[in-house]
Amino acid sequence: MVVVMAPEATNADVQAVVDLVRSAGGTAFVSRGVSRTVVGLVGDVADFDALNLGGLAGVLRVIRVSAPYKLVSREHHPDRSVIRVGGVPIGPDTLTIIAGPCAVESAEQTLRAAWMAKAAGAALLRGGAFKPRTSPYSYQGLGEEGLRILAGVRAETGMPVVTEVIDPGHVDLVASYADMLQVGARNMQNFALLQAVGSAGRPVLLKRGFSATVEEWLSAAEYIAQRGNLDIVLCERGIRTFENATRNTLDISAVPVAQRLSHLPVIVDPSHSGGRRDLVLPLTRAAIAVGADGLIIDVHPEPTAARCDGDQALVDADIRQLAEVASVLPPVMGRTLAMSPDRSETVAAHP
Amino acid sequence: MVVVMAPEATNADVQAVVDLVRSAGGTAFVSRGVSRTVVGLVGDVADFDALNLGGLAGVLRVIRVSAPYKLVSREHHPDRSVIRVGGVPIGPDTLTIIAGPCAVESAEQTLRAAWMAKAAGAALLRGGAFKPRTSPYSYQGLGEEGLRILAGVRAETGMPVVTEVIDPGHVDLVASYADMLQVGARNMQNFALLQAVGSAGRPVLLKRGFSATVEEWLSAAEYIAQRGNLDIVLCERGIRTFENATRNTLDISAVPVAQRLSHLPVIVDPSHSGGRRDLVLPLTRAAIAVGADGLIIDVHPEPTAARCDGDQALVDADIRQLAEVASVLPPVMGRTLAMSPDRSETVAAHP
Amino acid sequence: MVVVMAPEATNADVQAVVDLVRSAGGTAFVSRGVSRTVVGLVGDVADFDALNLGGLAGVLRVIRVSAPYKLVSREHHPDRSVIRVGGVPIGPDTLTIIAGPCAVESAEQTLRAAWMAKAAGAALLRGGAFKPRTSPYSYQGLGEEGLRILAGVRAETGMPVVTEVIDPGHVDLVASYADMLQVGARNMQNFALLQAVGSAGRPVLLKRGFSATVEEWLSAAEYIAQRGNLDIVLCERGIRTFENATRNTLDISAVPVAQRLSHLPVIVDPSHSGGRRDLVLPLTRAAIAVGADGLIIDVHPEPTAARCDGDQALVDADIRQLAEVASVLPPVMGRTLAMSPDRSETVAAHP
Amino acid sequence: MVVVMAPEATNADVQAVVDLVRSAGGTAFVSRGVSRTVVGLVGDVADFDALNLGGLAGVLRVIRVSAPYKLVSREHHPDRSVIRVGGVPIGPDTLTIIAGPCAVESAEQTLRAAWMAKAAGAALLRGGAFKPRTSPYSYQGLGEEGLRILAGVRAETGMPVVTEVIDPGHVDLVASYADMLQVGARNMQNFALLQAVGSAGRPVLLKRGFSATVEEWLSAAEYIAQRGNLDIVLCERGIRTFENATRNTLDISAVPVAQRLSHLPVIVDPSHSGGRRDLVLPLTRAAIAVGADGLIIDVHPEPTAARCDGDQALVDADIRQLAEVASVLPPVMGRTLAMSPDRSETVAAHP
Repeated sequence: MVVVMAPEATNADVQAVVDLVRSAGGTAFVSRGVSRTVVGLVGDVADFDALNLGGLAGVLRVIRVSAPYKLVSREHHPDRSVIRVGGVPIGPDTLTIIAGPCAVESAEQTLRAAWMAKAAGAALLRGGAFKPRTSPYSYQGLGEEGLRILAGVRAETGMPVVTEVIDPGHVDLVASYADMLQVGARNMQNFALLQAVGSAGRPVLLKRGFSATVEEWLSAAEYIAQRGNLDIVLCERGIRTFENATRNTLDISAVPVAQRLSHLPVIVDPSHSGGRRDLVLPLTRAAIAVGADGLIIDVHPEPTAARCDGDQALVDADIRQLAEVASVLPPVMGRTLAMSPDRSETVAAHP
Repeated sequence: MVVVMAPEATNADVQAVVDLVRSAGGTAFVSRGVSRTVVGLVGDVADFDALNLGGLAGVLRVIRVSAPYKLVSREHHPDRSVIRVGGVPIGPDTLTIIAGPCAVESAEQTLRAAWMAKAAGAALLRGGAFKPRTSPYSYQGLGEEGLRILAGVRAETGMPVVTEVIDPGHVDLVASYADMLQVGARNMQNFALLQAVGSAGRPVLLKRGFSATVEEWLSAAEYIAQRGNLDIVLCERGIRTFENATRNTLDISAVPVAQRLSHLPVIVDPSHSGGRRDLVLPLTRAAIAVGADGLIIDVHPEPTAARCDGDQALVDADIRQLAEVASVLPPVMGRTLAMSPDRSETVAAHP
Repeated sequence: MVVVMAPEATNADVQAVVDLVRSAGGTAFVSRGVSRTVVGLVGDVADFDALNLGGLAGVLRVIRVSAPYKLVSREHHPDRSVIRVGGVPIGPDTLTIIAGPCAVESAEQTLRAAWMAKAAGAALLRGGAFKPRTSPYSYQGLGEEGLRILAGVRAETGMPVVTEVIDPGHVDLVASYADMLQVGARNMQNFALLQAVGSAGRPVLLKRGFSATVEEWLSAAEYIAQRGNLDIVLCERGIRTFENATRNTLDISAVPVAQRLSHLPVIVDPSHSGGRRDLVLPLTRAAIAVGADGLIIDVHPEPTAARCDGDQALVDADIRQLAEVASVLPPVMGRTLAMSPDRSETVAAHP
Repeated sequence: MVVVMAPEATNADVQAVVDLVRSAGGTAFVSRGVSRTVVGLVGDVADFDALNLGGLAGVLRVIRVSAPYKLVSREHHPDRSVIRVGGVPIGPDTLTIIAGPCAVESAEQTLRAAWMAKAAGAALLRGGAFKPRTSPYSYQGLGEEGLRILAGVRAETGMPVVTEVIDPGHVDLVASYADMLQVGARNMQNFALLQAVGSAGRPVLLKRGFSATVEEWLSAAEYIAQRGNLDIVLCERGIRTFENATRNTLDISAVPVAQRLSHLPVIVDPSHSGGRRDLVLPLTRAAIAVGADGLIIDVHPEPTAARCDGDQALVDADIRQLAEVASVLPPVMGRTLAMSPDRSETVAAHP
């Protein structure tokens, strides 16, 4: 940490900072300039945080120079991680597509969507049974019935299942059906939920909050990692900005930025970020080209009948195009398209 | 709702919209212009939402014209509500100050902070026992021990207690100690938590998410109201913008905007929005003058020793100034400063 | 400036930074920590900027600790300035209201608006002759004819005139009619225009760009000051955020923040920030209470016939309320409402 | 346009809207719902804008459904345009790279940068002679001397020149040297400048303001088009958001969005959006893959000595990688890499 003293700070003010840092077991280096003095701190940042140095007389600013996360940081773990979901890898050598309906509405709709997903190149099936909705009057999902449908479709198609959990009290239930637990954007700082999924023994897909900085996103991942679960995949899904031509603004730069700061895989959600069907394919191509490790895409057999986000779901006519992108672009980036395991393996893993 | 057709939409496209609306029990009025056709919808918006009209051929945009919340709306409840917390009113005729330490650290610190709060004009005591922190390495609060301390300070000072709950599983525990449950900004769209506090039988202080629109904030309040609890106070605490001279940007306009849209009281948090001690008093004055129904302010007997947000806590020297603002400005706005109940009453209510 | 070295930086990397700083005439202090090294720089920041230290091997971040503006900074000019416009003061002891129509449309409309403005407590008349409009199909203003109308209304009412200039080539023309030149939000970083008004011999009203930080706003003022003109008044008029219930979000905190960083007066525009008539009075009260030195408010005798921003103009019915606010609140803040000079004085100053 | 009436609007209020619209030569269709009435307007939007319908009694909201730009809209010009700059095409079939130093500092530096640019696949040379800088103490450019250097380097390399103009009074001067005039992000709403470049007889590169919506960007292009100049290339260069890991947030979705709304070519600036050298190549790949028509990239022979934005300039080591991207990706997108004209042609065009 660096403490910048105000121009009017006295020698006693500077000394008070130095003394306080030392009392917390740290070391302080003082650099005196013509108009300002800067104090460099060495030691445990968490200890310094508790000192409230910013509140001391003569202190202008306290600047943190090291990251507030450790386990997910690339600093001490230079190799990028590979996370396995029901046997499917997500990491630096593959391009893994997760696809399916935004909400599970029926067994038939989910199965049709899964076959569409597989045709498009997806290895993993997504589908929401518990839906976090802005309005209490919107469709809230099928609950456990939806989880059972997902498990049935997994048995039929061989695709491991990714599904969202929104209540810490449901984590065990959802984990008993799913191969990967999704924490949604609105829950990225729901710390009780983060801790619960950190103890659930399943890989976690952590969506970036739509107003979270990359640093806050990695700090949220650290909550999960702290409970002993490092099987975390980060998902960029658009941030909230002033622009309203798209639902959110896909922060494409966040992919290389997060990959440089953390060893965890980073995937992109081109469906929710744009909120428009016509943007899904261009954003999918951009995500692969920027270096994303995977994608999560909405598909629906009948979008006009969808209970949730039908405007953005890919339909039959788009699937062939997505399949072509999925076959052409990953090799250009030195990646292999990840495939679902053989059906019998998936079934075996979930007796 | 209004459906705007694209310039290239055919008559059949328009007819498909009309038919779909009618099939859902609604009525559609078609206005044909030179280059565009607009279809006005009459009926239940929730039904129309499920139609995914935006996904139909020829549809350019679907515009929602009525609000997605009902119970908290002022449309059918023109009089502004008064909420009572341990006997203290929050509403259009009073100015109610809630003050106390950001985090409960010890009985002695909390008691000293409570007396400071009371001296400054506060009627209610705030204090955090469960703290939602961005980093898992930051101070997380005393938990139930903190709740016991708050109850003890209430018994001593007569000030009803406002405290945060962050896990749906803790709601009953927190409600057994507190007079008002606070839902923090990061949890504004934690729908499981909103539903839990909606059933807890205590008034709720709902902070605006730092990236939530006013409409989303009122929709979050609707989740609580739907469970039968209309004792909700809204709290504006700053939004996230590009400006970094302050921690967040206090959206002072949100106070009259929310008061016009909803009958619920709206208060302001001048401490967390600015994040700087020197801004607390100016923002307090602005909040009262704009028409806020109350304030929630951090005070701490020794900010440099605070475990949380010490940079923004008011200290002894500020208390007299705050007390003066609290005595001078409310009458200018036609309001009375709300007072704590007599100590014996508070104690009686929490045997 | 502070240079933070990356964890993997070598001793040679650190030495390269030190050598480069010394070669530019500066001094460098090295603080070596366990995992990081920090280099504090002393000397002329402009020289260091040119060094591109951020591009050197092993450099993680370069942190600027002093402000990029000097003449408008309060650091070497602790007393807050008073600017006089046609004899009317704007500064820490007064509350100065500037009011008038958004656009000058006719002599009759401008004169009626001026009398309304005066009745509401305004000392200065605003009115746009050259309008910067987002769309080329919107009303662009009367040009010089509008300036002549403003001069005529000044002669009749005694109110000095504030009007916008949008082209460096028009500065002399506008300055020959106006008492104060306004630089609009969209032009805050039109550096050619800033330099031109800096040489025009008239006080300048500098609106904050709707996406400018306070630091960029003060840097823009520095461009004007550099040309020898320190008669600058800053105007906060709302920033662009994700919230769309209001046209922009009034950054009320920017008033005390800018007053602390700069000695220049700071006023507020409650009309353009909210963009809604019903918000003008609440935001006016908030601005006075937060400590603003003045206000600039749209009034129009017939808003439904206005060529520009009629939605936000105050009308007759509001004027009495504004006058009451203008008489009651300034004394609470220890300020006097500024008045127009005697009519004969104004006329004499503009023969 | 659509006028949404408030629930409490009377029949007389609705009739007043209808009458006013008719008086302006328009037609109004009334759709009466259970709780609301909606009025659809047909006619010239510019006329309706002047009516201030939002200010009428009983009006809740006025919703614009058609775009405020016409000449640059794709609505009446479905084919995407090809713009030629010194013979080099920018359009849907090519991928055109513009590269060079942020600022022209010397003939030698500019020439070296131009050869680097050409080696990387660039067809056009960029370089700033007039620099818009946030601080008046930053490097402001060489002015006309810089233009002469650019012309000399064009003669030597055959690369047509793109350079920025910041003052309407300099447009003729800059146009006498340059092949394409750049309007920078800070000047996107400098309407005097837009009109001047609209009359200058040179193609224009219009950067998106860092806080401009796509609609405002296209409206700014309309200002240029209105003066008879439709040779406009749009450039996305990042928008201002809350995220500070990058200088700005590249809005990659804006490329397909703008291409759908306008027939003009859209290119991307991966250097200024991220502000970091390590992001330039990933963002370049993303831009090509999303469908951009070109790129504008900073290169510098000695970034650590650059007077401007050295942190983001590509250096020798990066050039080979950029060249490879430029050769591999465009064919995947069905595009050809655009090449500089033969040197003799360029020289002939600028005798």
